[in-house]
Amino acid sequence: MRKPKIVVLGAGYGGLMTVTRLQKQVGVNEADIVLINKNDYHYETTWLHEASAGTLHHDRVRYNVTDVIDTNKVEFIKGTVLSINSEEKKVVLEKGEVEYDYLVVSLGAEPETFGIKGLKEHAFAIANINAARQLREHIEYQFATYNMEEEKKDERLTIVVGGAGFTGIEFLGELTNRVPELCREYDIDFGKVKLICVEAAPMVLPGFDPELVSYATAQLERKGVTFMIGTAIKEATENGIVVGKGEDEVEEIKAATVVWAAGVRGSSIIENSGFEAMRGRVKVQPDLRVPGHDNVFIIGDCSLIIDEKVNRPYPPTAQIAMQQGELCASNLVALIRDKGELGHFTFDNKGTVCSLGHDDAIGVAFGKKMTGGTASFMKKMVDNRALYMIGGPSLVLKKGKFNVL
Amino acid sequence: MRKPKIVVLGAGYGGLMTVTRLQKQVGVNEADIVLINKNDYHYETTWLHEASAGTLHHDRVRYNVTDVIDTNKVEFIKGTVLSINSEEKKVVLEKGEVEYDYLVVSLGAEPETFGIKGLKEHAFAIANINAARQLREHIEYQFATYNMEEEKKDERLTIVVGGAGFTGIEFLGELTNRVPELCREYDIDFGKVKLICVEAAPMVLPGFDPELVSYATAQLERKGVTFMIGTAIKEATENGIVVGKGEDEVEEIKAATVVWAAGVRGSSIIENSGFEAMRGRVKVQPDLRVPGHDNVFIIGDCSLIIDEKVNRPYPPTAQIAMQQGELCASNLVALIRDKGELGHFTFDNKGTVCSLGHDDAIGVAFGKKMTGGTASFMKKMVDNRALYMIGGPSLVLKKGKFNVL
Repeated sequence: MRKPKIVVLGAGYGGLMTVTRLQKQVGVNEADIVLINKNDYHYETTWLHEASAGTLHHDRVRYNVTDVIDTNKVEFIKGTVLSINSEEKKVVLEKGEVEYDYLVVSLGAEPETFGIKGLKEHAFAIANINAARQLREHIEYQFATYNMEEEKKDERLTIVVGGAGFTGIEFLGELTNRVPELCREYDIDFGKVKLICVEAAPMVLPGFDPELVSYATAQLERKGVTFMIGTAIKEATENGIVVGKGEDEVEEIKAATVVWAAGVRGSSIIENSGFEAMRGRVKVQPDLRVPGHDNVFIIGDCSLIIDEKVNRPYPPTAQIAMQQGELCASNLVALIRDKGELGHFTFDNKGTVCSLGHDDAIGVAFGKKMTGGTASFMKKMVDNRALYMIGGPSLVLKKGKFNVL
Repeated sequence: MRKPKIVVLGAGYGGLMTVTRLQKQVGVNEADIVLINKNDYHYETTWLHEASAGTLHHDRVRYNVTDVIDTNKVEFIKGTVLSINSEEKKVVLEKGEVEYDYLVVSLGAEPETFGIKGLKEHAFAIANINAARQLREHIEYQFATYNMEEEKKDERLTIVVGGAGFTGIEFLGELTNRVPELCREYDIDFGKVKLICVEAAPMVLPGFDPELVSYATAQLERKGVTFMIGTAIKEATENGIVVGKGEDEVEEIKAATVVWAAGVRGSSIIENSGFEAMRGRVKVQPDLRVPGHDNVFIIGDCSLIIDEKVNRPYPPTAQIAMQQGELCASNLVALIRDKGELGHFTFDNKGTVCSLGHDDAIGVAFGKKMTGGTASFMKKMVDNRALYMIGGPSLVLKKGKFNVL
């Protein structure tokens, strides 16, 4: 009897969780397991704001996929997925094709610019390792150039962050640590620097406890961040952004650096493969399979699951992706052994912590609200936990965060 | 009787040497001494190729002027000189004017582009701290951007150095150390990087011993540098350079980074002040004064002295500037005390060492030719000697180079 072949696409939180669980639970004679990823490394998406600001080196934010998979049990293919042909049960890569019996799609997210003019061309996104280090170097180049010009262009020292959600706020927190360093490095007066957060929604960190949010905004404002809340970016240009002001008026904000952190969508490979999706996210069954595709699981940022309590989709987070990965693995085991019902996904919320720089944060965990050093400590533990879940104690020792105050 | 006022313009090698000697030799009642400099720091012009490549931090390449001057004896003014009015014996600054009885002009050099089209707009120069760190960041940004683009632009990884003189060769030497680091940092194949040295003259390092020159070119070629000797840059563009090829043909070389290291001239303030000069250099009398101006000394890169042995001007070097500064100080002392003849300048050649990176060099010192580790050691001693001459042992300890193999 031919062994079934399980193919996992993407080595993010969901994909690696699935593969590391599968390699423990599945015998070599039971199934072939293949993991396909664009890079030979995994990166911590939730740490990219640090690499982008330049407060944590990007090599601290990634590790080799082969460090955490058992290469005796899992075949790793470094390749870029173009599309999935679910009729013929195969994955089309930039180079070649791979057939599957069971497929796990965990291809992560992409920036969503909602059609706002100029964002794709002129704004940076905190999207991956390549993007993060380019953004870091772009900002540094602006500071390095400032004193070279006869006529000083103060907009070189203006950084606009579009979006006051999780990524935007965490990135601003890192910038408040990084910018004073850059000022010293390039002989620049900190008073010349502008950090501006532009958010179309009427609030910062929607869904977060209001008391914690007002702590966060006060702390960031104290460190030099200006908030423009309820303000929509109409356009990004070569020179900065144009925002709406009142009914019909617009205002130009000159800025050499515009970072778009106000939205993500699921991978566009989802639509390219013909799956029915909303912004790249497929509403999956409770067992995480795609309706009508009994052999295809979608997990992580490309999946969409409704939080019944608020009747809204769960936001795409690492925590959910990892929990989905665990269930996905056990459901795959049930399928290949052809026994039992598949398990249903329920989200076990361990809490959420939003960093505000290296020594400050806000969060809720164990049903308790936290701020400052306590929350910052908790954030580092959350980060270390993700490493532990995927790579065990050795990965925590290698890549963990221990610079606790 | 009014004390005479000595004003020194520029805190480079010549200016600081003059001031530090004056403050030892002149009593507070004998003269007022004023030092004017654009920045509140001195930088080691001869180390800028390291800061530009990113192999030595620019803060290692500079120190505060007030660290080496005796502020009880010397008044330091941070100011930018616009011109000298020798009729009215005053210096015009961006903000205000300063009168003098005796003037020492040691304003250093500027890049000379010989009217080559586009160089000013599109090429970098290794000219000062601001320029060096901008160049460093520009190169890094190109490497950071390479992997972000769908269609890879290999010219991002091409660095053209115009000029195979001292600065060009030393900068290339640093690049051969730095580029492998950048490749690791940004996941780039070293094979994609091009380091090209374009030199219009038919030789590398003119004036240097041919045996040493062939050692240098062989070493740099081994580490990835391509030499295009006898090749003139016709134009620098947004995309790179255009070089002459044969009689009428031209060839385009695409490069995101073009560094012009093929010529310097004396400060343009010299001409703006009406002194007769060739490319900003004034042919001074043997006592270092300007013909017809008994109270104005010009030293360093703005001065021109003929080397009688070869009937050509001495090249502008730190070594000469410092020796001129010593003589300038003692001649000033003779003038204010109104006794004796002024001394005449003779250059005491201590030798020359050209670095080829952190552990390699070529040079001649004590009448001996040296290469490799020996020459590299000697280069560091030369660098430390300049610190010692100006700031004594404490400055050597603070800023010296001790990373000797």
